[in-house]
Amino acid sequence: MGRLNIDNINQHVRAAEYAVRGELAVKSEELRARLGRGDQSLPFGQVISANIGNPQQLDQKPLTFFRQVCSLLENPQLLEKEDVLINALGYKPDVIERARWQLKHCGSVGAYSASSGVPAFKESVAKFLERRDGFPADPAHIYLSNGASSGVNTLLHVICQDDKSGILVPIPQYPLYTASLSVLNARCVPYHLDEARAWGTDLATIRAAYDKARAEGVDVRCIVIINPGNPTGASLPEADIRAVLDFAAAERLVVLADEVYQTNVFVGQFHSFKAVLRAMQRDHPDGRYHAVELASLHSISKGMVGECGHRGGYFELVGFDPAVEAEIYKFVSIMLCAPVIGQCLVELMVNPPRPGDPSFELYDREYNAIAGGLRERALALHAAFAQMEGVECAEPQGAMYLFPTIAVPQRAAEAAAAEGRTPDEFYCMRLLEATGVCVIPGSGFGQKDGTLHFRTTFLAPGTEWVGSIVKFHQEFMDKYR
Amino acid sequence: MGRLNIDNINQHVRAAEYAVRGELAVKSEELRARLGRGDQSLPFGQVISANIGNPQQLDQKPLTFFRQVCSLLENPQLLEKEDVLINALGYKPDVIERARWQLKHCGSVGAYSASSGVPAFKESVAKFLERRDGFPADPAHIYLSNGASSGVNTLLHVICQDDKSGILVPIPQYPLYTASLSVLNARCVPYHLDEARAWGTDLATIRAAYDKARAEGVDVRCIVIINPGNPTGASLPEADIRAVLDFAAAERLVVLADEVYQTNVFVGQFHSFKAVLRAMQRDHPDGRYHAVELASLHSISKGMVGECGHRGGYFELVGFDPAVEAEIYKFVSIMLCAPVIGQCLVELMVNPPRPGDPSFELYDREYNAIAGGLRERALALHAAFAQMEGVECAEPQGAMYLFPTIAVPQRAAEAAAAEGRTPDEFYCMRLLEATGVCVIPGSGFGQKDGTLHFRTTFLAPGTEWVGSIVKFHQEFMDKYR
Repeated sequence: MGRLNIDNINQHVRAAEYAVRGELAVKSEELRARLGRGDQSLPFGQVISANIGNPQQLDQKPLTFFRQVCSLLENPQLLEKEDVLINALGYKPDVIERARWQLKHCGSVGAYSASSGVPAFKESVAKFLERRDGFPADPAHIYLSNGASSGVNTLLHVICQDDKSGILVPIPQYPLYTASLSVLNARCVPYHLDEARAWGTDLATIRAAYDKARAEGVDVRCIVIINPGNPTGASLPEADIRAVLDFAAAERLVVLADEVYQTNVFVGQFHSFKAVLRAMQRDHPDGRYHAVELASLHSISKGMVGECGHRGGYFELVGFDPAVEAEIYKFVSIMLCAPVIGQCLVELMVNPPRPGDPSFELYDREYNAIAGGLRERALALHAAFAQMEGVECAEPQGAMYLFPTIAVPQRAAEAAAAEGRTPDEFYCMRLLEATGVCVIPGSGFGQKDGTLHFRTTFLAPGTEWVGSIVKFHQEFMDKYR
Repeated sequence: MGRLNIDNINQHVRAAEYAVRGELAVKSEELRARLGRGDQSLPFGQVISANIGNPQQLDQKPLTFFRQVCSLLENPQLLEKEDVLINALGYKPDVIERARWQLKHCGSVGAYSASSGVPAFKESVAKFLERRDGFPADPAHIYLSNGASSGVNTLLHVICQDDKSGILVPIPQYPLYTASLSVLNARCVPYHLDEARAWGTDLATIRAAYDKARAEGVDVRCIVIINPGNPTGASLPEADIRAVLDFAAAERLVVLADEVYQTNVFVGQFHSFKAVLRAMQRDHPDGRYHAVELASLHSISKGMVGECGHRGGYFELVGFDPAVEAEIYKFVSIMLCAPVIGQCLVELMVNPPRPGDPSFELYDREYNAIAGGLRERALALHAAFAQMEGVECAEPQGAMYLFPTIAVPQRAAEAAAAEGRTPDEFYCMRLLEATGVCVIPGSGFGQKDGTLHFRTTFLAPGTEWVGSIVKFHQEFMDKYR
């Protein structure tokens, strides 16, 4: 018998839950493999992975400018044949120029970079933040990361001191947060988002969660905000952000702003925590907001870039003690550096072709086509949900997800219990088996007691799969009514 | 005042040490920046980063076949112009064929893959292991990772249960191990390698370290072996590996074999732990070795591939309880997947062009030139150390490092103490300031009390920097004699 068994390994890892790639995802891959082997016995012809925001697995094409640059970074020998690139392959001069510039600064995409990223790329990020926010940004406080997930992992590792440390996490949430806190054996302090107000933040709810945790002896030290929301798709109004920052300043909470969906906004406008904080600091010279510690994260995985397989991202620190920041730097350095080609894509994301550049027109056309396509798909899916019995769904505002409420008959809840599943897990499993559409039950993200939801991406093309959900839902309701 | 300070953050992170990117590395980057700004006041014209195994930062060129494939993966539109690729750019048909095959299996390098890697690439790894070891390998137990470091991080996270869990770690060691154990608040149980026997493993030493830790109440559950060694460069004889496996079987220890330098072997031959274990299992049908749990790791970062900036690697699990392996899978899935282009490079590493393939001749020539160059540089550096007063260095056997012993005069030790440094830190700091050569003091890896070492890579080209070390050393000895 070996040394390790389920009871003597790290029980904090065991306790972690990550539904995005859990049972349903595994089952969907099995079904996909059966279809691939020519299995004709399934009631559908394809599996739709609406469980995960993976744009390029579905329909989204990479942006041509970005990938042309990457092809030259991977094979710099091509730069010796500029005439072939331009005349035979249609590469524009700004593609070649950017590749030369990035190579000059990283040396080779096969070499380790500095631990926090290639300095010149961090400068591009800082300039982007300045343009976006209208306030200065300092490359010294920018860290290029292996996607946003590794940034979150780094920050939670440093922020959490022990098993009394608590982090306010929105519910529903992206399960990276609860899973990481489980592994760290720190406390998740859940606060519910307000479904009735399009999943906005409600300060009274946040304060109640904070007070309750404090009363239980939890050392609450940080609040996580996901904006635009995952899984909710909500895009926060500026007033909500101000209220959160005001609360954080008063209670001395670190603010962790997960802003990876910042370009996926259909309704209203994205407001960055950094811009709102700097405006509050400017408008209150009494210094009451000057000590706020803010970490904000972004990624190449989402938005119109959609390069999640390349694992690139960054986080910016504002207001951190230099000694604490040195520990963040050290923690990052143990894993050496973020993938360098991912760093190059971060640089391209924050510094894309501009009007007048040779590649601008194509870039702009592709970018807008993706944005428009996402919006159309979101609206079509929302319209389908509107006609489904017992389903309610907020208007799509942003991100890549809808998170409808479902009400299932009592007999369905009983059948679920008989299988040892929650009703939403039961519903999603039946949906997968009947249609090949994989979505995630709301319980994987957290939801108010007595409510049921599921999260679906709106990345998949076409309307057939949406129709199959509608049809399944009707049959499910009829069966268990 | 902000919430976080050095005393209230995670003290296990604070306690972690990682010298490879510590004070000397930071200082060397400052010096490099000064030279870049045209500073003429330094006594050298370039900084040599011999502190880190970063082949492509120095002189090593990427393998052409690998990067040609990557350029097509990044820009699949190029595959529509096969004639240009072949006739104008010199791409061989097997480059195009491999890119098409990899794209067929990953979809897009911009899409997330399955959590443990693209299934077809894991099959290539399994076939490679079968060819290398002469024993079957199962892709279901292979996990593609973000370099070997993330694999080590994953495995230590699952293996360590609590602050009583102990891991046997060789001293000197690559500091990833001690740093990760610090962060996890688990126990490092150091065992010294035998410098007199070319840094081999000595079973009596291992057993003594094990017994001592057990007597102190440590739950020792795993032994780490780095073979070929880092920082020692040692390549273990088969007898040492058998002895370790025998001990692990008797004491029910998980074996973690870090084999990232497996192709960097100059003397003798690389023996994989997997091959030796399978042979022992075959030769002892009484089953005494059947329960051994072995995790072995490999990477694209080292060897003749040298693609560390791409962050690719894998680990294979042998003999793990399926329920434990499921937890490893879940842990990996929280970080989604390894960089997909890094996964593609893993596939290329384990499945390179073969004799008769159109790209074979060039691949083979490049590969052998790199291997030969490394060997030459190692020998030249070793010869230089041989002529230095008070320096002793084992014959180069493998990896990318030499780890000489130095003996410094008493007055140098006193001067070091006055600066609050260990004598080897003091020596390395003076070396950097005088020559621009950055090496790492032995204390960053661990060394026997009363001994001093430093680790240097032998990746840098030319002999000038070696000469500057010899000259510095003479002056240092003269000054403090």
